[in-house]
Amino acid sequence: MTAVTFRLDATDGTARAGTLTLPHGAVETPAFMPVGTQGTVRALSPLDLEAIGTGMVLANTYHLHVRPGEEIVVALGGLHRFMAWRRPILTDSGGFQVFSLEGFRRVDDDGVEFQSHVDGARRRLTPERAVEIQWALGSDVAMALDHVVPGGADATLAASAMHRTTRWLRRALARHATLAAEQPGRQTLWPIVQGAAHRELRTAHAREVLEVADWSGVAIGGLAVGEPKPVMYGILELLEPELPRQRPRYLMGVGFPEDLLASVARGVDLFDCVAPTRNGRNGSAYTPDGPVNIRNAAHRRDDAPLDATCDCETCRTYSRGYLRHLFVAEELLGLRLLSLHNVRFLIRLASDARRQIRAGSFDPWHRQWMDRYNPRRNRET
Amino acid sequence: MTAVTFRLDATDGTARAGTLTLPHGAVETPAFMPVGTQGTVRALSPLDLEAIGTGMVLANTYHLHVRPGEEIVVALGGLHRFMAWRRPILTDSGGFQVFSLEGFRRVDDDGVEFQSHVDGARRRLTPERAVEIQWALGSDVAMALDHVVPGGADATLAASAMHRTTRWLRRALARHATLAAEQPGRQTLWPIVQGAAHRELRTAHAREVLEVADWSGVAIGGLAVGEPKPVMYGILELLEPELPRQRPRYLMGVGFPEDLLASVARGVDLFDCVAPTRNGRNGSAYTPDGPVNIRNAAHRRDDAPLDATCDCETCRTYSRGYLRHLFVAEELLGLRLLSLHNVRFLIRLASDARRQIRAGSFDPWHRQWMDRYNPRRNRET
Repeated sequence: MTAVTFRLDATDGTARAGTLTLPHGAVETPAFMPVGTQGTVRALSPLDLEAIGTGMVLANTYHLHVRPGEEIVVALGGLHRFMAWRRPILTDSGGFQVFSLEGFRRVDDDGVEFQSHVDGARRRLTPERAVEIQWALGSDVAMALDHVVPGGADATLAASAMHRTTRWLRRALARHATLAAEQPGRQTLWPIVQGAAHRELRTAHAREVLEVADWSGVAIGGLAVGEPKPVMYGILELLEPELPRQRPRYLMGVGFPEDLLASVARGVDLFDCVAPTRNGRNGSAYTPDGPVNIRNAAHRRDDAPLDATCDCETCRTYSRGYLRHLFVAEELLGLRLLSLHNVRFLIRLASDARRQIRAGSFDPWHRQWMDRYNPRRNRET
Repeated sequence: MTAVTFRLDATDGTARAGTLTLPHGAVETPAFMPVGTQGTVRALSPLDLEAIGTGMVLANTYHLHVRPGEEIVVALGGLHRFMAWRRPILTDSGGFQVFSLEGFRRVDDDGVEFQSHVDGARRRLTPERAVEIQWALGSDVAMALDHVVPGGADATLAASAMHRTTRWLRRALARHATLAAEQPGRQTLWPIVQGAAHRELRTAHAREVLEVADWSGVAIGGLAVGEPKPVMYGILELLEPELPRQRPRYLMGVGFPEDLLASVARGVDLFDCVAPTRNGRNGSAYTPDGPVNIRNAAHRRDDAPLDATCDCETCRTYSRGYLRHLFVAEELLGLRLLSLHNVRFLIRLASDARRQIRAGSFDPWHRQWMDRYNPRRNRET
């Protein structure tokens, strides 16, 4: 028995609308997952997230392992009960975090040793441990541990890390299969396609990964890490025909509104990013006319909502002038209200894209949307 | 026409249950008002406040005058629209804040000159200005400017400040009457009884103040500023028979759960205090068994709610273990969830007191409640 299915509801060129069914419910794609790093989407409650139509959230395996520790999460009823989130959760593998940490880190074929950012203690992560931790957490989708290299890594380093990622993937799958034998359909495991910015490695790795198993979904890692946009778009176009049509594709760490739409156009179904909450806490809000800095003095006596087209509590309730006041006066409510709006903006963007795909009008809509969101860039390209 | 009435629904000894009707709605008393210093109750939204049964909030005239300035609040539709709070608002006079400020301050019979904590600019507050600012804000209840002295002030200083407060009160009333003539029933003005810890001054000031006008409510200021509890209780007992039965009594700056009940027992109807939100942000939560520090390691794997008797979102949704995690991991959601619970705790306490008063069982209930909340102190007294 597997509880995980993906149904392709419609396509429009390479853009896709689907329904991903997971143990804790169904998610309509394209979909954006807000990030709950430490078991909470910063400044937002589960009720807030439900109110703005969040279908699925991401939580960070590394962070939850280091604090409070998965044994505490288990004692408190598993990750869903712990963070009071009833719908699907995807956990990352911890790989990205471990390889992004400042300070000590040593990687070999067995796994990676690193220093906890909380207490400085040395810890080890292996493909098996990453699977075990995520199994303990009880997320719907677990990610296999990958060896992450910097975006600009040369072909030798990128190839070696990528082949190691494939070897780790086989071990992760074996461990996951043993655990899942006891409780089938509790959780599914997805691989991560790496290869940095090297096109030949990307194609090779996609093929390697897909030879290992018939995955219920495939992630694309190592993009949106600072490379020029055309490089990312090019790799997505390259991978699109390589990836199984009937499986969801998850682009890790994306992103900004314009990147989300550009990636939907290139066949991506799932996204996650800290940007909407992080930018929100910095006073930057997405609007159909581009980002707005709410601290700007221009908003001082502006009675208009942040985004007149938005249906979130922030836009239905407060003026820009009040939101500016909250930020200038350093009030906590401001952090929450802008985070709420920004996440709603991306969720609505994904669901608008879905509607346009189903109507066969994604391309012209996408062009029009970009034109309004960022007229200058649009004229330049 | 006056929109402000107070109906005494029941009494039980000196404890009172009433209904205070204000321009923006009715408030059942005893009632606790959370404090929205800068036009927001820290970490909570108006919807949160409504969900936990908040009848009325307090906002700080001094803070809103300094930032964003009442002219901005007016441009954004007045204080209710500005902070999206539909129910009654009481604004303090600014006196307490000005006299509590660090740094420059000069008081004479005309008013008080002080330095803004935001930009260091010299500003002047007079009884007339305090009334005008609050009229501009559009709160339901405005407070007259008082000359606040330290809790331990000697009789000479306390008497002089108190007589000045009465002179200011006459000027405030005159200005308020002029404004209210244009728009009767928009706002009501309440006086503040001062006199520090001097019993003879307290009685004298209550009589002075009540000679000035037939106020729709009376505030008691200058208590809960660090004096021993018996001093505060003694002054409340002294004032109780001096104050008109048919008018609400508002004890400023109170307070902690035990002080709220002790004051209800002594005939007080309305309260405000920053403690529930401030303590909440510090990780301290009220429970029927006394305050709990949620950071305590004892809560690490505790699956129980913060307060099993509480109906707030925090207690209905999350374990102590999760709340502890939020505080240890310094997550914003923790600040909000404990603030929400603490405010709900005081609102429920006031409404439980009301029910007991109406049933004629306030005294035994109060004793039992104290016994559970703080058994040690109870045995000592």
